[in-house]
Amino acid sequence: MKKLEMLYEGKAKKVFKTDNEKQFIVDYKDDATAFNGVKKGTIVGKGVVNNKMSAAMFMLLEENGVPTHFEKLLSDRESLVKAVEIVPLEVIIRNVVAGSFAKRMGLEEGTELKETIFELSYKDDALGDPMINEYHAYAVGIADRETIATIKEYAFKVNEVLSKYFAEKNIRLVDFKLEFGIYDGKIILADEISPDTCRLWELGTNRKLDKDRFRRDMGDVEDTYQEVLKRIQE
Amino acid sequence: MKKLEMLYEGKAKKVFKTDNEKQFIVDYKDDATAFNGVKKGTIVGKGVVNNKMSAAMFMLLEENGVPTHFEKLLSDRESLVKAVEIVPLEVIIRNVVAGSFAKRMGLEEGTELKETIFELSYKDDALGDPMINEYHAYAVGIADRETIATIKEYAFKVNEVLSKYFAEKNIRLVDFKLEFGIYDGKIILADEISPDTCRLWELGTNRKLDKDRFRRDMGDVEDTYQEVLKRIQE
Ligand SMILES: Nc1ncnc2c1ncn2[C@@H]1O[C@H](COP(=O)(O)OP(=O)(O)O)[C@@H](O)[C@H]1O
Ligand SMILES: Nc1ncnc2c1ncn2[C@@H]1O[C@H](COP(=O)(O)OP(=O)(O)O)[C@@H](O)[C@H]1O
Ligand SMILES: [Mg+2]
Ligand SMILES: [Mg+2]
Repeated sequence: MKKLEMLYEGKAKKVFKTDNEKQFIVDYKDDATAFNGVKKGTIVGKGVVNNKMSAAMFMLLEENGVPTHFEKLLSDRESLVKAVEIVPLEVIIRNVVAGSFAKRMGLEEGTELKETIFELSYKDDALGDPMINEYHAYAVGIADRETIATIKEYAFKVNEVLSKYFAEKNIRLVDFKLEFGIYDGKIILADEISPDTCRLWELGTNRKLDKDRFRRDMGDVEDTYQEVLKRIQE
Repeated sequence: MKKLEMLYEGKAKKVFKTDNEKQFIVDYKDDATAFNGVKKGTIVGKGVVNNKMSAAMFMLLEENGVPTHFEKLLSDRESLVKAVEIVPLEVIIRNVVAGSFAKRMGLEEGTELKETIFELSYKDDALGDPMINEYHAYAVGIADRETIATIKEYAFKVNEVLSKYFAEKNIRLVDFKLEFGIYDGKIILADEISPDTCRLWELGTNRKLDKDRFRRDMGDVEDTYQEVLKRIQE
């Protein structure tokens, strides 16, 4: 399998073609952005952590019945994945009030919820990934009912599996963002699962173990990424 | 029936107690606001138009099986209504792309939709009435599943009845906002249905017959409100 030309470069990863048209290589960068690209920086070693953590999460999810794009780890920063057509939705699950939702609703971070939240944003950088509801997605043709029903089922399953997994690592899975793609006509989980895309709070202390340390200039950013990977590898 | 002390004053109406604790008097003002109160003005005669139009709409909806708060017209600007506990949701139906949704999605006003949109905002002036989805409402305790199911059923029914009604007046019902309340433990339609709360476009010409004339300084504001009432009374 050969790494061919770069197909696109995102904020956190580069995607390369391979000599198999059904597979891409994802190359994880140390670049960090926040607030829709307004804040920019580098988190040394992040690419390695996110690549290895995503691999571990995708393997765990496959074992639990969630189909993913992950094929295999190629190097510290590279993974081989199924080439999908990304559904332009950011799929968000919230177990606890945090981040944009706290601000939007005037609630304190950490406020408990009566139930888990399933939320969608339209993945469009120029528009700032606006939040939408399911009717918006249908009415504008972003996704149909069957697609969203499948995505929802998988997203809740991911939450169940990962919440349990992180609890065993003494971490609370507060919220996370998923992206799905279409492969052979079927929906599968794509993109990454990392401290960039999850809010992870240490149980008991509520110490933040995720990208909020970068977003909010809380310090110990690199060390925290390493710590999360270490807990996962234990 | 006696008009007693004012209970609260909103941006467009005053609500008074009566000697019957289950009834309020709503008094429609000429005050106009837009962009969550940032733009302020007066539309002479608006209170009369909105009072009379709301009365006509509520009577039509009652005939078609939608329970409403409307009891009777008391004067040009006053109606007697059932005293409800307002569910803090702005319930929005969209038949065509317009307003905030056009901006949010980068779509042109007037773009056709594949289906009708049902949308919710959390009614909270201080937060700017943020858009939410159904999970947000459940998780935060704004409304439960049964309440939202009933509200949704009524909202689509209102759309069906009023779209047909306005089409006969040579007007397209583009979108509208409803508020619901709880009366005797049941959900009923409350608040108002007027050019303040509906987008109404003349069929054929797409001439705006609603509060966008005020929001966007398009002129002929007062005349347009009168014209809508005249078409309804014909
Ligand atoms: N399996 C895949 N096939 C094709 N594209 C993918 C796959 N997994 C992720 N992508 C896409 O790769 C791009 C690069 O990722 P990233 O740098 O995170 O982008 P972004 O700047 O949108 O966050 C994104 O558009 C993402 O949706
Ligand atoms: N039947 C009713 N019983 C109680 N309150 C009502 C009823 N109908 C409408 N209201 C409330 O009356 C208030 C005044 O209306 P309005 O001036 O339109 O307020 P706003 O500034 O919130 O738009 C609003 O809070 C509205 O929800
Ligand atoms: Mg990304
Ligand atoms: Mg109002």
